[in-house]
Formats: sequence, C-alpha cells, structure tokens
Amino acid sequence: MNMPWDDIISEEDKRRYAAAGFGRQARLGTRPALLIIDVQYRTIGTTPAPFWESIKEFATSCGDVGWDAMGNIARLLEVFRENDWPVMYPYVAPKEQFDQGRLAEKNPALMKVASKGYEFPAEIAPQPGDVMLPKKHPSAFFGTPLTSYLIDKRVDTLVVTGCTTSGCVRGSVVDGFANNFSVLVPFDAVYDRSQTAHAVNLFDMASKYANVTDTSSAIDALKGVAGSRNV
Amino acid sequence: MNMPWDDIISEEDKRRYAAAGFGRQARLGTRPALLIIDVQYRTIGTTPAPFWESIKEFATSCGDVGWDAMGNIARLLEVFRENDWPVMYPYVAPKEQFDQGRLAEKNPALMKVASKGYEFPAEIAPQPGDVMLPKKHPSAFFGTPLTSYLIDKRVDTLVVTGCTTSGCVRGSVVDGFANNFSVLVPFDAVYDRSQTAHAVNLFDMASKYANVTDTSSAIDALKGVAGSRNV
Amino acid sequence: MNMPWDDIISEEDKRRYAAAGFGRQARLGTRPALLIIDVQYRTIGTTPAPFWESIKEFATSCGDVGWDAMGNIARLLEVFRENDWPVMYPYVAPKEQFDQGRLAEKNPALMKVASKGYEFPAEIAPQPGDVMLPKKHPSAFFGTPLTSYLIDKRVDTLVVTGCTTSGCVRGSVVDGFANNFSVLVPFDAVYDRSQTAHAVNLFDMASKYANVTDTSSAIDALKGVAGSRNV
Amino acid sequence: MNMPWDDIISEEDKRRYAAAGFGRQARLGTRPALLIIDVQYRTIGTTPAPFWESIKEFATSCGDVGWDAMGNIARLLEVFRENDWPVMYPYVAPKEQFDQGRLAEKNPALMKVASKGYEFPAEIAPQPGDVMLPKKHPSAFFGTPLTSYLIDKRVDTLVVTGCTTSGCVRGSVVDGFANNFSVLVPFDAVYDRSQTAHAVNLFDMASKYANVTDTSSAIDALKGVAGSRNV
Repeated sequence: MNMPWDDIISEEDKRRYAAAGFGRQARLGTRPALLIIDVQYRTIGTTPAPFWESIKEFATSCGDVGWDAMGNIARLLEVFRENDWPVMYPYVAPKEQFDQGRLAEKNPALMKVASKGYEFPAEIAPQPGDVMLPKKHPSAFFGTPLTSYLIDKRVDTLVVTGCTTSGCVRGSVVDGFANNFSVLVPFDAVYDRSQTAHAVNLFDMASKYANVTDTSSAIDALKGVAGSRNV
Repeated sequence: MNMPWDDIISEEDKRRYAAAGFGRQARLGTRPALLIIDVQYRTIGTTPAPFWESIKEFATSCGDVGWDAMGNIARLLEVFRENDWPVMYPYVAPKEQFDQGRLAEKNPALMKVASKGYEFPAEIAPQPGDVMLPKKHPSAFFGTPLTSYLIDKRVDTLVVTGCTTSGCVRGSVVDGFANNFSVLVPFDAVYDRSQTAHAVNLFDMASKYANVTDTSSAIDALKGVAGSRNV
Repeated sequence: MNMPWDDIISEEDKRRYAAAGFGRQARLGTRPALLIIDVQYRTIGTTPAPFWESIKEFATSCGDVGWDAMGNIARLLEVFRENDWPVMYPYVAPKEQFDQGRLAEKNPALMKVASKGYEFPAEIAPQPGDVMLPKKHPSAFFGTPLTSYLIDKRVDTLVVTGCTTSGCVRGSVVDGFANNFSVLVPFDAVYDRSQTAHAVNLFDMASKYANVTDTSSAIDALKGVAGSRNV
Repeated sequence: MNMPWDDIISEEDKRRYAAAGFGRQARLGTRPALLIIDVQYRTIGTTPAPFWESIKEFATSCGDVGWDAMGNIARLLEVFRENDWPVMYPYVAPKEQFDQGRLAEKNPALMKVASKGYEFPAEIAPQPGDVMLPKKHPSAFFGTPLTSYLIDKRVDTLVVTGCTTSGCVRGSVVDGFANNFSVLVPFDAVYDRSQTAHAVNLFDMASKYANVTDTSSAIDALKGVAGSRNV
C-alpha cells in the first residue's frame, strides 16, 4: 500500500526508525469504537470547495480534502451501525465568554466561528444513543469523560477519524495509545489543511502509536474482529 | 530567525495556516519551570557519536544531535539554577515485568534497554530538590503527578526540552497547552532521530501550541520575565 | 468554634487523628476561586421545604438545609464579585440517552429528573464570564477541564460550596487537594441529606484535605488575602 | 448481613437515602482486579498491637484492625492467584525532598516515616508480574497510570482493599466508579484509625459508588464470575 508519507520521509529516516524498533503492528481487540473528531461544518464548509474558496465561509475549513475524508468516514460509520458498535463524537464546543486561555492567544479567530460552523453534516450525523463529547482542548480525552464511556462499553480498540490529522486526531491517538487502547487510523478518513503535516503526523502515528492503513483495509480488519456481522 | 521547517513546509502551507489564524505568539507568564524530558543515555549514548554508530550502544539513541541539544539544555539549566526556578525531569522509567501493553507491541525493543541507558548524563544531572517524574507513557503529564507539582510551585510557563521532538516532547507540549500553561520550546534544545519529523512537529507546535525559538532567544525572553536575576 | 462533628466523632478518635499528625491548617494562597457545586433546583427544590416535603418535587432534593446553605453561598459570592475573583459552577449535566454506566445502576432515579431541576436558583445564579462546567461524575475535576481554567486564572485556593457534602463536594475537595490547591470548605455553605454523613465527611476533610470553618470565618480569612478589597 | 454503619446511620437517614433512590447493587463484570492499597508496615506496624501501642512504631499505623483486615485481604488474594486475575498494589511512595505541597502542610509527620514503614508485609507481599503503583496522592488513580493497566488487562470490576477506608480507599473507589468500573468493597478487608469514619465512609460508598459486603460474600460473588475456577 502506498503511504501518504512515502515521498516525504526519506529512506534514511525509515531505516533509522526500523533500527530503533518502531513501526510494528498492534493487535486489534474485539470491541471497537469509532471516534469521529471535529467533523463539523467549521472544518469542511457547508459545501465541497477548494481550500481558498472554502475558508471564505469558515477560516478553519480544510476544504474539499475534508469532504473526501468524510466519504470514507461514512463508509466506516455504516460498518459500525451494522454491528451496533459504539460511535462517539468528540467535537469542538461552541466558544463561550469564559473560554480564553492559551488557545485564544495562539489563534484569536477560533473564538469567532459562526454557530452554523458547529453543526454536523448530514453525511455523518449523530443518531440517538451515540456518545456526544463537547471538548475545549485538542485531545478527545482531555477534560472529557471519554475514558468512562469507553470503559462502560468494554471498548478495547479505537478507530480514529476526522480532523485535523496534526491537531485533535494526533492528540487523541497519543492519549488513546497511552491508555492502552489499540488504535487504528484510516489515513484517508482523517484530514488537514497541510498535506505535509498530514503525512508526517501519520508517519509518527504509524511508527509509535497506531496501525495506519486505508479505509478499505481498515474495514477488512474490522470484519475480522470476533463477532462482527458481515456487511 | 531561520526555522527548522523553512525548507519542508511549503509557502502555500504557511499561507494556509496564516489564513486560518494560527501561529500567534503566546504571552509568557512570570513563573517558568524547565522540563528536561528523557535526556538519559538511552537517547544519546554514553559518548557523542553519529546516529548509526550510537545505536550500536542503545537502539533508542538519536546520536550526536542529542549531544548538541544537551549543550543548549545545559545553558537553559544554568539560567534556571541562577533564578531558583523549578527544574523537573520527566524520564523513562526502567521497564518492569508488568509493563506490557501497546508500547511493547509497537516497539518490543523498548523493553530491553540496558540499565545504564536510564541514567542521566552529568551535563544535565538532577540536583537535590529537583522534581523527578518517572513515566510509562509519552506525555510527561500522563499518569504522573506533574500538574500537582506545577500548581504547588505556582508555575505558569513551561520551557520544554529533551526528546524526542515528535514523541514525548510533542505529547507534553500538547498537554501543557491544554492545561493552559504558556509553553516555550527552544528548537535547538529538543532532538529526534528524523530531521523531517523534528521539523514538522516543531511547525505544528509553533502553529498551535507553543512559542518556538532558538535557545539564545529563549534565554533572552526568560530574562525579561518579572523577577529574573541577570545571568 | 463548634464543629458539625463534635458530637459524632469521639474524643478517642480525635486523639487518634491528632497522634497521627492530621488536622493542621493549610496556608491559603493569594488567588481564590469559588466553586458552587450542584446548587440546582434538583438539590433544594424550587421553594424551601422540609426534607420529606421537598423530595416530592425532586427525589434528589436535600430540602431546607440546602436553602440555609445557599444563603451562606450568596454571602461568599458577594465577596468574590466585589473582588472580581473567579466564580465557577460545576453542575450536574442533564442526563442524555447515552449516559448510563455505574451511576444509573446505583441510582436509576437520577436518570429521570425533570428539566426544571437542572436550573440555577436566582440567589446564586451565574453571571456572564463565570465558568460553567457541566459534569457527569461526582468530582468537579473528573472529565471536565476545571484544572485548565484554574491554571489560566492563576488560582491557588479553592473555596468549595454546594452539595452534597458526602458526594460531589467531598470528591472535588479530595481532587483539589491532590492537585495542590489550598482548599477551604465553609461547613455551613455545604449540605447533604444526612447530617451524620455531612458531619463525618467534614471531619475527614478537616483532618486530611482542607481548612473547615464557618462562612463568617471564611470571609474573614478571604479578607486577609493579599489584594482583597474591603467588603 | 450486619453492616458496619448499622448503629451510626439512623433509620431516618437510611429512609432518606432510599427515598432518593440510592443504594442499588451494581452488576459485577467478568474480569476483576484486586487493588491492595497502602498495606505497608506504616499502616499496621511490624507486629499486631493495639492502636496506642502500634503508633509508637509508626505514627500512621491503624494498629490491629489493620492486621485483622490483612487476614481477609490474604483470603481474597488467594482467590485472585488461583484465577490468575490481576493484582495491583497502589502504595505510598517514600517521600522525597521535592514532595511538599498541601500534604506536608496538613500532616508534616507524614514526611518523616522510617523506610521500613514503606515495605510490604509477607502476608500480602507482591509477586513478580503484579502491578506496582507508587503514588503521591490519596486516590490510586491520581497521578498514576492505573487506568492504562486496567484497560490493558480488560478489567471491568475492581475489588478494593487496604487503607484507610476514609482516605485512599474512599478516593480510589470514587474514581473507580467515575471511570465506570464496577466496584466491590469488602468491609472487613479495609481499615481505618476511626471506626466512625470507617463506618460512615462505607455507608457513603455502599449508597453511591460500590457494592459493600463482607469478605466471605465477596469471595462467593467472585466465584460466580464467568470463568472463575473453583477455589
């Protein structure tokens, strides 16, 4: 499989990581949950459009790479719905007057996104019973009760999707790994405004924290999970 | 100032991040702490040597980029000692029989590092009163009481050094930011086995989570902190 | 000062705790925050009434002991407003379909409180700028970004009020102490449905985690904090 | 079964808790872990002795109530060993020069316990493969990677033992509950220096967070767990 970082990470660097022992595949467990992170209009726009067009609507949009990824998230979502596996939506909570701090310093524009930007696209919309996790910080685990839901539902494996690859996805994957969940990242179901940041963060995650593959292979791997229904 | 990512992140990507509003400088506070992360022989070797030479001693070594960075950490350490500011050592705890989990799956070799590898080089050795934080996971905050020490010492600003840029440094910076500490990363006081991963992770951190500068500028900035003694 | 546990904890037990070294006073810091925990109609009813009357409206109500305590919380709130010190409202988030888990097993009735029960009484109502913290679990720190707000606002001291003394107050005080905040609990500004549980939990907190005093003394102590305005 | 709080919590208070809906039994899961908290010589002394005798050796000792409880912990330990279920030892880490903060203020004597006090009695001594968790704060979850070990080992149920009932046991039970683990507390396998604090904290836990029973019933319940071997 071609990997997004193939042309960015040099052969020398790949040899160095292999020599240090990184990059083995983790075993998937038997009880996966799907995390759909920050897939709200604010990160893709209300209609597919190229990056520079899309940011006229929401400065935080990644444009049509987000729409492409959302198509793959929808495929994963179908598998999870068929199997009645948990689906969880960590999402950017609308900013409130008391939300200042370092985030507002690094990017003041984040405080002024229009309310429509916080809504979920129909293609991946939550259903009753899904776990909704408003969050104030990058990682889906930070300052949220995500771990409690995962433990309650006996989850042992996380399939992490959404955006941005180099931001909230990356932070959530690192925390998921540290919590000892098996983590699977479908590289074409996560997205970012920089393809370089996207690719290198996927390389980091594949080396140290997660199994990284395309969505089709991820679905095949999930079908192999004990108890999954054929879809 | 030339930045490590200047030749890796395209002008297009830089414009995209600027358009989204990222990359502002955070205000430093008045009470900094120095985090020296994982600067143990296992990440640099017992003597300076090129990468492929150094990993013969410890497969986890980054080689002489680590020794170069350690020189800059020592300069920062001197400033912190002069001002009696807190110095904290989050470090890789020697692996024990019960430490398995996802880490051992992704990199089995990490479980077999010789005990000498866990020692601290004399150049940055801890002194009595420094806070020692053995850790089992990437972020210095995960599964450690780091936050409690920072709150006890009224710290508001973290200067994050050590390794690897794309691993434990990155994870700690994201958590430090999420906790609302101001974060300063001197780019020549952190190190990694891949210069691409090093550079792109620094770009990510500079864009979203931290002020990134060279050590000399970091020291100048610290001298401007209220109450610092001239050094 | 008479303490709520005077008639419940024996002299023998008090001597035992003193022999073990417990019960010293912690130093208050210079930057307090007021936590008003779960003071919603669901814990006091919409009008003052005795316990057995009040639970006809909300099974979770503590009745008029809650109204008494709310009067003292209002006095503390006035001091915090005068000094522009941070006021934070960790509160029970309305239950959603996905909120099951151990809580619903231990007390299924908690899942069915009418929506009016989640509103705040006018006497202690939040104002714009106050920090609102919906929570799913007992401690105000668990699964919320409370620590991030406290660090952002340079808080070093928590004044903890609300209910129940033996539940969410107790859990929040233990976590506040573990985080190394100085903790002050005004015993007549916290409330519970059992006076025995109330008293013994206050004894536990006074012995190990917090300074416990009446509201008038708490206000005097806060007036001694550097920079407070006379009120 | 007679409960430790029968003579301390009034019938009125019991009726109040029942009216509020508290006190249901939680379902146990299928994968239990045993937590043995702070059972070190510092909490029981090196030989069984009455309280006032025992504290001459260690001011923090609970005396012979601890030895009685340890006998019951040993019975539980045997069941866990027979079934190869995980056994974990959250324990008080020896104090270091940098460990100050609120704990040292509330009880300065805690900083000066002789090193023998940190050792484990032979009756419940750890074996290779058990999870060791040095901790600095009351709850076994706070500032430790306990959750990561529990997730790695697919644990869904905690059996919490050790001391003190009103301190580290209570804190750990509240956090275990908040994390959505089923929690079982054998009341004669936990101990405290105050029988009143012991009893009322057990009442709190039985009402809100855990199943509380005697050790014999706890062992019977564990034998009913799917897959347990007869012992």
